[in-house]
Parts: sequence; C-alpha cells; structure tokens
Amino acid sequence: MTTSQPQLTVHHLQRGQSERILWLLEELSLSYHLVIHKRAPLLAPESLKAVSSQGVAPVLVDGDLTLSESMAIATWILNKHAPANPQSAAVASSLVPGPDSPNYAPYLYWLYFILTSVQPAQSCCMMAYFDQNLTDKPDSIAKAAPRGRLQKFLGMLEERLASSPYLAGEEFTLADLMALWPLAGARTFIPYSLARYPKVLAYVQKVAARPAYRKAMQKGDEGLPILDGAEPVERKAHF
Amino acid sequence: MTTSQPQLTVHHLQRGQSERILWLLEELSLSYHLVIHKRAPLLAPESLKAVSSQGVAPVLVDGDLTLSESMAIATWILNKHAPANPQSAAVASSLVPGPDSPNYAPYLYWLYFILTSVQPAQSCCMMAYFDQNLTDKPDSIAKAAPRGRLQKFLGMLEERLASSPYLAGEEFTLADLMALWPLAGARTFIPYSLARYPKVLAYVQKVAARPAYRKAMQKGDEGLPILDGAEPVERKAHF
Repeated sequence: MTTSQPQLTVHHLQRGQSERILWLLEELSLSYHLVIHKRAPLLAPESLKAVSSQGVAPVLVDGDLTLSESMAIATWILNKHAPANPQSAAVASSLVPGPDSPNYAPYLYWLYFILTSVQPAQSCCMMAYFDQNLTDKPDSIAKAAPRGRLQKFLGMLEERLASSPYLAGEEFTLADLMALWPLAGARTFIPYSLARYPKVLAYVQKVAARPAYRKAMQKGDEGLPILDGAEPVERKAHF
Repeated sequence: MTTSQPQLTVHHLQRGQSERILWLLEELSLSYHLVIHKRAPLLAPESLKAVSSQGVAPVLVDGDLTLSESMAIATWILNKHAPANPQSAAVASSLVPGPDSPNYAPYLYWLYFILTSVQPAQSCCMMAYFDQNLTDKPDSIAKAAPRGRLQKFLGMLEERLASSPYLAGEEFTLADLMALWPLAGARTFIPYSLARYPKVLAYVQKVAARPAYRKAMQKGDEGLPILDGAEPVERKAHF
C-alpha cells in the first residue's frame, strides 16, 4: 500500500479565500491534490460552477464527498484527517484549543468574530465599493454602515493585538489562519490602508511569514505577489 | 448547596439574533438569568454597549467571562455547560453530530452555509434596502449582488429541504437552530415573502413550533408575535 496518492482534492480559486484550506493542509503536513482555477477575470470561472452548486472556492473532494464552505472544510480536515498521524494530530491540537484550554473562550470569540463579523462587513463594503450609484455619497447607508462596522472591528483587532501576540493568546490557532484572508488577500478587491492599525499590520505580516502559508501560496498562487498587508496599497484606498 | 441561582446570564436584544441563545438553553434545559434589552427604536440601546465592546447581543456572562458572538457562545455552552448533567449532555450530542456521524459533513456544511453565507448576504441586503440612494436602481451592485446571492441560497435551501426534513438530515441540529433567525426573525427588518420557497416556509414553521423555541420567545420577546415565516409579510416585500 502506498501513500503517494493523496486522498484529498482541493479546488482553489487563485487570489481567493480557498488559500486557507491549502494553508491548513500545509500546517498539518497532509498531502493533497490541488486543482487551480483562475479568475475570469474577477469572479469565479465556469470550471468552479461545475464542481459545486455554490460555484465558489474552496471545494474539497474526499472520496464520494464534495464539501464547500471554508470553515466546514477546515473542521472536516481537522477532525477526520489530522488524527491519522501523530504529527498532524499534534498540530491540530495546537490549532484548535479545547474546552479545557484557558484560551478556549478567546479562541471561540475571535474565530467567530473573524468569520461572522469582520468578513461579512468587509464583503458588504466591497459591494458598495463597486457600486457607481454610491460613488461620492458619503451619507449612503449601504456604504457607510458596513464601513463603520469594519472600522470598528479593525479597532477591536488593534486593541486585542496590542496585548496578545495571536488572537486566541500566545499561540497561533485556526482563528489566525482564518483571519489573514479578510485582512490581507481580500484587500486586493477593496484596497484600503492598514496604516491606522499598526498592530494589525504587524500581525498580518507575522502570520503571512509562516512557512506553511508561503508554501501554500507558492503552490496555489504561483507567480502572484504574496499579500501580506505591506503598505502602501497599490490602488487608491477608498476606505 | 442550592442550584436555584443560575450561573449564566444572557443579554438578549428583543427581536434579535440572541433569541438563538435563549432557545439553545431551553433545548438543553439549562437555567439562566435573562437580561432583556429593548430596541431604541431599531438599533441596540446604550445598555447593551455597556455590557460588551461590540455593543450587540447576544452577550453571555459566565463568572468572570463576558462572551459575544452567537456561535462562540453556543459552542461554549454546549461544551462547558451541557456536559454538567446527563439530560443536557444527551441533547447536546444530538444537536452537534460528531465526526463519526454519517451526517457530520452535511451538518458542517449547512451550519456554516447559514452562518457565513446566508446571514451575511441577508445583512448586506438589509443595508441596501435601507439606502435611499439605491431606491429604484435595480442595476445597483450593492443591491443586486447580495440579493442575487440570497435568492440563490434560498433556492439551495429549498432543494435541500425537499429531500431532508432538517438541514443535517433526519434530526434537528444546531444548524437548524442557527437557521431560524435569518429565515424568520431577521425578515422583520428586510421583509420579503418566502412564497417562492414553500419547503423553506414549511421548515421555518416546523422549527419555530418547537416547545423550547416557544418557551424562549415567551421569556425574551413576550408580547411580540412569534415570527415563524407565516405569509403574508405585513410590510411591503421589496425582495
């Protein structure tokens, strides 16, 4: 029996939040087959729609199972595949503090803060950013409300990272792995500066320097510059 | 030693997504102290801002811990408090299928689909809905893009519920408990009809009929009508 044939196939959309799944698999040292989809030119291509009903990345194929949603895929990998070998299992334990960890509450809080507060606010900002009807309308609710939320959230992250090296505490966890995309990669699509949030910026650069992230980006986004939050943002910052 | 003094305090914003925490505690038969905040008139009142930095509900106070984010609070309760007695532990096990359950993958998928796809799309729709700048602009990206996503998501839910009584499979789980708010309560703020999604509508009514939900609403939203998706929506549907 050989282990050269990876069981897992990951569909990755370049410059997309699916980078988190590649990254997680690299952190866990699990092998996977990678299918790369290129944006056409901005949105997901037809090739992704053929893979899943939602038509977006990431998509994980594991035998008969086809699974979407980043956090569902991450949880699946952590609980179904990481236990297969001691090294991966040990990494998974450090990435996901358990109920007995003193960092359990902050881990849960910051993980879901990123997934269900920060990222949605930013996505909503992006819609308003692309909307010509809202250009030069600073009083627009559709523009101002999500932007106000995002600014508040960035301020909360700044405060947290002033007193803690990582979101959950002293160690890198899944909360940090989930946080990089909205704080770095997603800013390709809604460019704004992190200059007012120096702790967040330093954190983004620290997290993006992890070897597993670099390796994932080398495989998934080869030839594209690493987005580590470095200033200045190339395009005009509207935020 | 008496158990009459509940350890947990839940801050609930009436007609708010914090109904999910009351409901979960009722499902688990765990006692709690309830603090009710009224909207002033639409947004969260100052009293909530005094409780947590985010200024929104739910907020759980558990000894020295103050925790926000619905899913963080739910996970905390399920893993830290439900194990305290056999009855609650058994309910928690049924609400959260484990990695060995055949429904583990659909559970994870639909849970995160609700939390990180459906609810954000709907929140973004709500911003556009309230924005006068976007009135009568059907081509507006800020309006059409999230609405298109939400309609697609409702179609996916309709398809799922045509073949499965609950989101994860045969049994009611945390995915369903998280789903009711965006599909029912939140539609107070962005009224639209579910008439085109009869399976979703029937599902919403079935889930909202659970005794634990009724009990939670009686405590938290006393005097307000139960929002179970019943048609027609009172205000004009713009969706």
